[in-house]
Amino acid sequence: MTSPSPVPSFRIGTEFLREHWQGHRLLTRRMIEAFPADALFGYSLGGMRPFGEMAFELVSMADVGVQGIATGDWNQLAHHGPGPRPATHDAILALWDATTARIDALWPTIPPERFEAVDKAFGQWEGVIYGLLFYWIDNEIHHRGQGYVYLRALGLDPPAFWER
Amino acid sequence: MTSPSPVPSFRIGTEFLREHWQGHRLLTRRMIEAFPADALFGYSLGGMRPFGEMAFELVSMADVGVQGIATGDWNQLAHHGPGPRPATHDAILALWDATTARIDALWPTIPPERFEAVDKAFGQWEGVIYGLLFYWIDNEIHHRGQGYVYLRALGLDPPAFWER
Repeated sequence: MTSPSPVPSFRIGTEFLREHWQGHRLLTRRMIEAFPADALFGYSLGGMRPFGEMAFELVSMADVGVQGIATGDWNQLAHHGPGPRPATHDAILALWDATTARIDALWPTIPPERFEAVDKAFGQWEGVIYGLLFYWIDNEIHHRGQGYVYLRALGLDPPAFWER
Repeated sequence: MTSPSPVPSFRIGTEFLREHWQGHRLLTRRMIEAFPADALFGYSLGGMRPFGEMAFELVSMADVGVQGIATGDWNQLAHHGPGPRPATHDAILALWDATTARIDALWPTIPPERFEAVDKAFGQWEGVIYGLLFYWIDNEIHHRGQGYVYLRALGLDPPAFWER
């Protein structure tokens, strides 16, 4: 097998990447559900943010992010603002599910070569698209890992890391 | 641009992936250094493992992992056992740095198409190589995120997530 690229590289299916992202997002959704109502936006450790605030950051990043990948428009959407931040399970889960559907709807419109293009995410972070998406996924795993400690410290069992 | 693959896909440079992995590993190394000596293997929250134990899991997985990717041999190496587990900063950092050098040494020997091959990692988890490596990186981010809560709860500032 020879590569047409000037640098050594390999291929990743766009569907693999969608499933990888959505699998992580499904696990984070389970984490949101696992938090008691008063703890989701009211509990934290070490002066950090409650998990619900982190989850709001994650869903906002994913929602504008998939739009940016698909269209090159990194502006926040009307449906995400300027309303109040969610403060309940129902409100954050409704946002979460809307973004999940949006990712699935926009994904097939993204030409595969778009993932190799350079863009400036959210008007600020320049990089190749797949690298930007990895950063968002990594950021979600990072904060979700923090949520695992919150849940354990509350005496609750988090969902298994490998269940996506 | 047309794709020679039967499914929509895009290319990732093998060097990008090495830098991505090593960048995360460098951040985790900074986290190990940030822990006080008594806390690295003696402090935890919620009944979870101390960060030093997580770090030992991560370095073991990376060390055997890169060997498995490069050679197809997923057996634990002699240099990783049967000695005692590390219990100090110096011991875990020495292992960490040896694995960092091993990844850099073995990486150029991996044919790019190997990342698209299916193998059974550690003799147990079957999947495409790039997906297996993503899992190890994700697992590292997950546990490192937990270490961030430990450090914050100890009143210490962890290194910035985006510094790789």
